[in-house]
Amino acid sequence: MQRDAVMENTSPQYIPRLPVEEGDPATDGRMFRRCLGQYGTGIAIITTEADGRRGAVTVNSFASVSLEPPLVLWSIADTSRSRELFTSSGRFAVNVLSAKQMDVSRHFSSKLDDKFADAVWALGEFGSPLLDGCLAHFECETYSQVDGGDHTIIIGLVKRASRFDGEPLLFSQGQYSIADSHPAASPTPEASGAKPDTTAEGTIVSQIFEAHHLLSTRFDEHRRAEGLHLSIARILACMYDRPGLKIDQLAAATHLGQRDTEDAISELLERELLIGTEGGYSLTDAGRNLRVAIKARWLAFQHAQIAGIPEADLRATIRTLSKLIDQNKMAE
Amino acid sequence: MQRDAVMENTSPQYIPRLPVEEGDPATDGRMFRRCLGQYGTGIAIITTEADGRRGAVTVNSFASVSLEPPLVLWSIADTSRSRELFTSSGRFAVNVLSAKQMDVSRHFSSKLDDKFADAVWALGEFGSPLLDGCLAHFECETYSQVDGGDHTIIIGLVKRASRFDGEPLLFSQGQYSIADSHPAASPTPEASGAKPDTTAEGTIVSQIFEAHHLLSTRFDEHRRAEGLHLSIARILACMYDRPGLKIDQLAAATHLGQRDTEDAISELLERELLIGTEGGYSLTDAGRNLRVAIKARWLAFQHAQIAGIPEADLRATIRTLSKLIDQNKMAE
Repeated sequence: MQRDAVMENTSPQYIPRLPVEEGDPATDGRMFRRCLGQYGTGIAIITTEADGRRGAVTVNSFASVSLEPPLVLWSIADTSRSRELFTSSGRFAVNVLSAKQMDVSRHFSSKLDDKFADAVWALGEFGSPLLDGCLAHFECETYSQVDGGDHTIIIGLVKRASRFDGEPLLFSQGQYSIADSHPAASPTPEASGAKPDTTAEGTIVSQIFEAHHLLSTRFDEHRRAEGLHLSIARILACMYDRPGLKIDQLAAATHLGQRDTEDAISELLERELLIGTEGGYSLTDAGRNLRVAIKARWLAFQHAQIAGIPEADLRATIRTLSKLIDQNKMAE
Repeated sequence: MQRDAVMENTSPQYIPRLPVEEGDPATDGRMFRRCLGQYGTGIAIITTEADGRRGAVTVNSFASVSLEPPLVLWSIADTSRSRELFTSSGRFAVNVLSAKQMDVSRHFSSKLDDKFADAVWALGEFGSPLLDGCLAHFECETYSQVDGGDHTIIIGLVKRASRFDGEPLLFSQGQYSIADSHPAASPTPEASGAKPDTTAEGTIVSQIFEAHHLLSTRFDEHRRAEGLHLSIARILACMYDRPGLKIDQLAAATHLGQRDTEDAISELLERELLIGTEGGYSLTDAGRNLRVAIKARWLAFQHAQIAGIPEADLRATIRTLSKLIDQNKMAE
C-alpha cells in the first residue's frame, strides 16, 4: 500500500487509538477468539433427530440470513461428534436460550453421552427436538451446507417460528450476561426527552437505575485500568475462596464460558499465579497476594464512592434498598 | 407425523408453554423478524473500498465461522445499493461497535449519499476503511460468496484482527442495549460463593446492583403482563411528549431499531392509536388515553414499591443516590 494514498483517505479528525492487542489470527488463535468475543451474541442450542439418534450442539454462530425465503444459518465444527448426524439428517431446530437457561447452555456444552436424558423437551412438528423454556424456536429443513474452513456452515429454511416471553441469555466478552436498556435510552417507560418525574416517589426507582449504570461503568474502567481481564479476576477470586475446583466447576461458579475459563487458567499457569494439583488447581503465594490486592482496591473504590455521605444517610439508604430487594426477591 | 412417536420422544417433565406468537415465516415476515429478535446480537458496520468508491452497511448478521483458517461471515441484502461494490471489491473490514457508538450505527443505517464524509475513519493496511472508536476490527479478504435467498452471504478470510477497550453495543428484542453481568454471577468482583462484605461501606454498591436487577425484571414482567410490546410503549410515550416527529427521529429518540420503529408504527396505525399527518404522525384520542393509562400504572408500580418506607428514609436515600450519580456523572 502506498502510505500517501492511506493519508488521503483518512478523515482529518482521525486520531489513532492503540488497540489492547492486534495481530494475524492465522498465528494467534487465542487473540482472535478474544477479538471475536467483542461482538456480543445470544446462545442457541441446535438439535436434530434422525433414525432414533438425537444430536444437540450449543452455538453462538447463529445468524439470520433472509426473509423471503426465510433462512437462518449456524456453523458446526468438523471435529464435533454430532457433525455427521447434522449434515445427514436434513433438518434441525434452533432453540434460542433465555436468561434463565445458563444451566441448559452448560448442560448441552458438556461431553455427556445422552444430553437429552436430563433435559425437558418434546419433538416438534417438523421432526427435531424442541427444548422447554426457550425464547424462540425455529424449526428448519436444511437448505444448503457450505465449506467454512474448520467448520461447516448449515443454512436452514425455517418452516415454523415461535416466540416466547422472557429475557435473552447473552454471551459477550467471554461471559454470560443479560441485556440492559441502553443508558442513553430512558431507564423508565418515559421516552427520552420527556420531563423527568421529580416527586420523591418517582425518583427513587429511576435513580437506582442510573446509579447502577454509572457505578458499574466506573468500576469496569477501574478494573481495566489495572490491565486485569475480567476472566482472570473472577478465576482468582473463585480459587481463593474455594480451592481445589475443577475447570468445569470454575466455569460454572464464575459464569465464564468454558473456553475463556481454559484460556484464563492457561494464562494464570504461565504467570505462575496458579499451579496444577491432583485433580484440580490451587493458587500460588503470588496468586493469593494478587487476589488480596484486588479485593483491597475494590473496598477502596467503594469507600471513595461513599466518602462524605453522612453515616445516618448511609444507614437509611441501606434500609430502603434492603426493603426493595427483599420484597422483589420474595416475588421471584 | 404419528402422534405416538411424538409422545414417546417427549421427556416426562415436559409441559407445553404457550408461545406469544408462532407461525409460518413464509407468510408472516413481521412475526418472523420478532422471533429472530429474541436472539441478541452485536452491531457491526462492514466497510469496503475499491477504485475510489467506498461502501458501508450496518448489520447484525455477523458471525464467527472458523479458527483455522480464520473465517467470519455476514449477509448483504440483494436490494442494498452497496451490494455490487461488496461482491466485487474482494475485501472488507468488520467494525464491531461499542456502547458509545449508537449514533454511528444510526448514521451508517441512514440513506445518506456519502456516509464517510461525516465519519471518523482511516484506510486499514488491507485496503478497507476502519472506523474510529470501535471495539474490534477484522480486516478481511473475501473468501467466498454464497446464495442466501434475498441476501448474499459473504465469507471473509481475516488477515488482521484488533481489539480495543470498551463495552459492546447490543441489539436485542428490537432495541439497542448494553450487556449487564448475569444476575447469577456476583454483582461485585467477589466470585459467587464468596462471603458477602456486610460492612455498611461494602453493602451499598452491591445493594444498588441487586435492587436494579430485581426492579427492572419486575417492571418488565409488569409491562409484558399488560400485553404491551416495549416498542409500542416507547413510541406512544415519545409521540405524547413530542408530537410531529418523523420515523427517523422517533427511532433515535426511543433507541429502537429502524425496523422495529416502522413495525410499531404500522401496528399503532392499524389499532387507530396513531394517524398520519403532514410530514409526520400524531396520536389519536385513544392513543393519548392509552399513554396516560400506562404512565399511571408506572407511577402506581413505583408507589407500591416504596409503600411502608418511612419518609425520612426515602429522603436520605434520594440524597445518597443523588450524590453517587453526580460524582460519577462528573467523571464521565
